[in-house]
Amino acid sequence: MSIRIGILGYGNLGRGVECAIKHNPDMELAAVFTRRDPKTVKILTETAEVYSVDEAEKMKDKIDVLILCGGSATDLPEQTPKYAQWFNVVDSFDTHAKIPEHFDNVDKTAKAGGHVGIISVGWDPGMFSLNRMMGNAILTNGSDYTFWGKGVSQGHSDAIRRIDGVKDAKQYTIPVESALEAVRSGENPELTTRQKHTRECFVVAEEGADLARIEKEIKTMPNYFADYDTTVHFITEEELKKEHSGIPHGGFVIRTGKTGWNNENSHVIEYSLKLDSNPEFTSSVIVAYARAAYRMNKEGMSGAKTVFDVAPAYLSAMEAAELRKHLL
Amino acid sequence: MSIRIGILGYGNLGRGVECAIKHNPDMELAAVFTRRDPKTVKILTETAEVYSVDEAEKMKDKIDVLILCGGSATDLPEQTPKYAQWFNVVDSFDTHAKIPEHFDNVDKTAKAGGHVGIISVGWDPGMFSLNRMMGNAILTNGSDYTFWGKGVSQGHSDAIRRIDGVKDAKQYTIPVESALEAVRSGENPELTTRQKHTRECFVVAEEGADLARIEKEIKTMPNYFADYDTTVHFITEEELKKEHSGIPHGGFVIRTGKTGWNNENSHVIEYSLKLDSNPEFTSSVIVAYARAAYRMNKEGMSGAKTVFDVAPAYLSAMEAAELRKHLL
Repeated sequence: MSIRIGILGYGNLGRGVECAIKHNPDMELAAVFTRRDPKTVKILTETAEVYSVDEAEKMKDKIDVLILCGGSATDLPEQTPKYAQWFNVVDSFDTHAKIPEHFDNVDKTAKAGGHVGIISVGWDPGMFSLNRMMGNAILTNGSDYTFWGKGVSQGHSDAIRRIDGVKDAKQYTIPVESALEAVRSGENPELTTRQKHTRECFVVAEEGADLARIEKEIKTMPNYFADYDTTVHFITEEELKKEHSGIPHGGFVIRTGKTGWNNENSHVIEYSLKLDSNPEFTSSVIVAYARAAYRMNKEGMSGAKTVFDVAPAYLSAMEAAELRKHLL
Repeated sequence: MSIRIGILGYGNLGRGVECAIKHNPDMELAAVFTRRDPKTVKILTETAEVYSVDEAEKMKDKIDVLILCGGSATDLPEQTPKYAQWFNVVDSFDTHAKIPEHFDNVDKTAKAGGHVGIISVGWDPGMFSLNRMMGNAILTNGSDYTFWGKGVSQGHSDAIRRIDGVKDAKQYTIPVESALEAVRSGENPELTTRQKHTRECFVVAEEGADLARIEKEIKTMPNYFADYDTTVHFITEEELKKEHSGIPHGGFVIRTGKTGWNNENSHVIEYSLKLDSNPEFTSSVIVAYARAAYRMNKEGMSGAKTVFDVAPAYLSAMEAAELRKHLL
C-alpha cells in the first residue's frame, strides 16, 4: 500500500511536493488542503481532491503524513504543533533562531498524539545542516564554511520591491569564487560578510522613477545590502520575465580540518548543490523525510525530530538489504 | 566518563585511530591489541598499554568499543564476528561484494552478545555510500557517479611492485576533469572506465632492469591497468621517498536528477573529499561511529549496523539541543 500524503498550503512548495510524489511510486497524494476557496485551487494530480483546511482533522485516518507547506514567519509556528496532534507531519521551518522553541512546541503535541513531526527539512536547514554537523563530528579540529548561491533570495527581492518607484525585482546571491578557493585550499581564512557573497539585483523601475535614488536606496539598505558589494541592473519588465523567472539556488558547505598526532594532515569535505528550482529540490528532500516519518512512526516512535535524528535508511524506498548490496 | 576505545591491529589505520582519539576529548584509548610481540609495538599514547590479541577477551569490561583495524581480505571476515560477541565493534570492511555476507555474520554474534557492530565505516564504503544513498532517495529520477582520486591506490601500487625488476612503486588514481565537468553539467554522460580515471605510476626499477618491458607489463596488466590510460615514470628511490611518501586520497560522489511535473528542472548534488592522509581521515570517521556504537548500545540496540542505520546525531559529542541550536 502506498504512503498517503496530504499537502497543507498549495504555493511553490506545495506544488513541488506534488511533483515529488509523482517521482516516488511508493507514495500517493491523498489530499491538498487550502485556506483559499477549494474550488479556486487547481492541482495537477487527477486522483486527488482539494479541501478546505478546516476539513483536515476529519481526514486524519486517510493520511499517513501531512506536509506543511506554509511560511516560517507566521504559518508554521502555529500549524506544525497543531497538526502534529492528528498527523505525522514534516515542515521546512527555516527561522534558525527559533528552531529550539519550534522543536519543543512540536515535540509536545506530537508526543501527546503519538505522531512523528520532522521539522526544518529541506536543504538549509536540512542537507546543509546535516553536512555541517557530520563534518564537525568527523573533523573535530577544523572550521565550517557555508556559502549560498548562485541563487534567488526571495527576501532580498521583496526588500527591493518595497522601494518607492520599483515595479518588480529579482536578487541573486553569489558566492565569491576567490573566497571559496581560499577555503578549499585549507588556508582557514576569516571571511567578512562582504568577502563571502556579492549581491546582484535586476530591477524594473516605474516610468519616470529616479534610478540613481533607487540604486542608492538598494545599496545602502541596512542588513540586506549595506554589508555587501551590490550590483544593480535596470531592465525592462519583459527582460525580467524572460531571463529571471526561474527560482534557482544552491551553495556550498565546506569543512576543513586537521588530523594526525601533531595536526600534520589537512582535509577538505565539500558538499554542494546546484538547483534549477529551489522549491522543487526542497520538496524532494521533504518527501524523502515524509517516508521516514511514516516508517519511524510505524516502529513506534513519536515526538519532534530533525534531520539529525533520522537514520538515513528510512529515507529510501529500497529495502535495507538492497541498500547494503547496491549502495554501500 | 570517557568512552573507552580499544584498537585491534596497529598499522596505518590503528595509528590513525589513536590520533583521532586525541582529537575527541570524550574518548580515551584504553588498549592496543596486536598479533605481534606487544613489547615490540611502540604507541604514541602514554596512558595506554599494548597487549597481545589473546588478552582482548579478558578485557571486555574495560573497553566500550573495540575498533578493528585489520585488512578486509582475511582479518575482518574472521575478527569482526568474533569480537562482536564480547564488544561493541566498528570495522572498515571494504570488499563491496562481500558486505551482505559479512553483515549477516556480524549481526548473529553481535545480537547474541548484546552488542552493536557497525561495519564498512570510512569514506568508501562510508561517507561516499551515505551520499550515494541519500542522493538516490532525494533525486529519485537521476544518475549516480563516483570518481576516486587524486590519490594513492595501495592495491595498484602493490601490483606494480610484484613485477620482476621493480624495487618500489606508487600508483595514483586520477579522475578525468572533463568527465567530471560533463557530469556536473547534467549531461548525464555514459562513461567508460577509461573515460573516468587515468592512472599515474612512479616506479623505482632495479639496476639494469628492462624499463620498456616493465612499462609494458604495467600498461597491459588486466583489471589493474589495461582498461585505463596509464602513465609510467621511472624515478630514483630518493625521489620516491621525498615526493611520494604520503597517502593522499579523495574523490567525488555526484548525483544528478530531474524534478518537476514533466522533469523540467535539473539538479546536481556533489560531495567531495580532498584528503592528505587516507588512513587518518578513515580513522576520524570510524571514531565518530564508535561514539555512535557506544550510545546506540546504551539505548538498548544490538546487531550489525552500517552508516545507513545510524542517525547522524549519534556521531557528535554535542548534546542534541546544542546541535539543533548551533548546527541546524
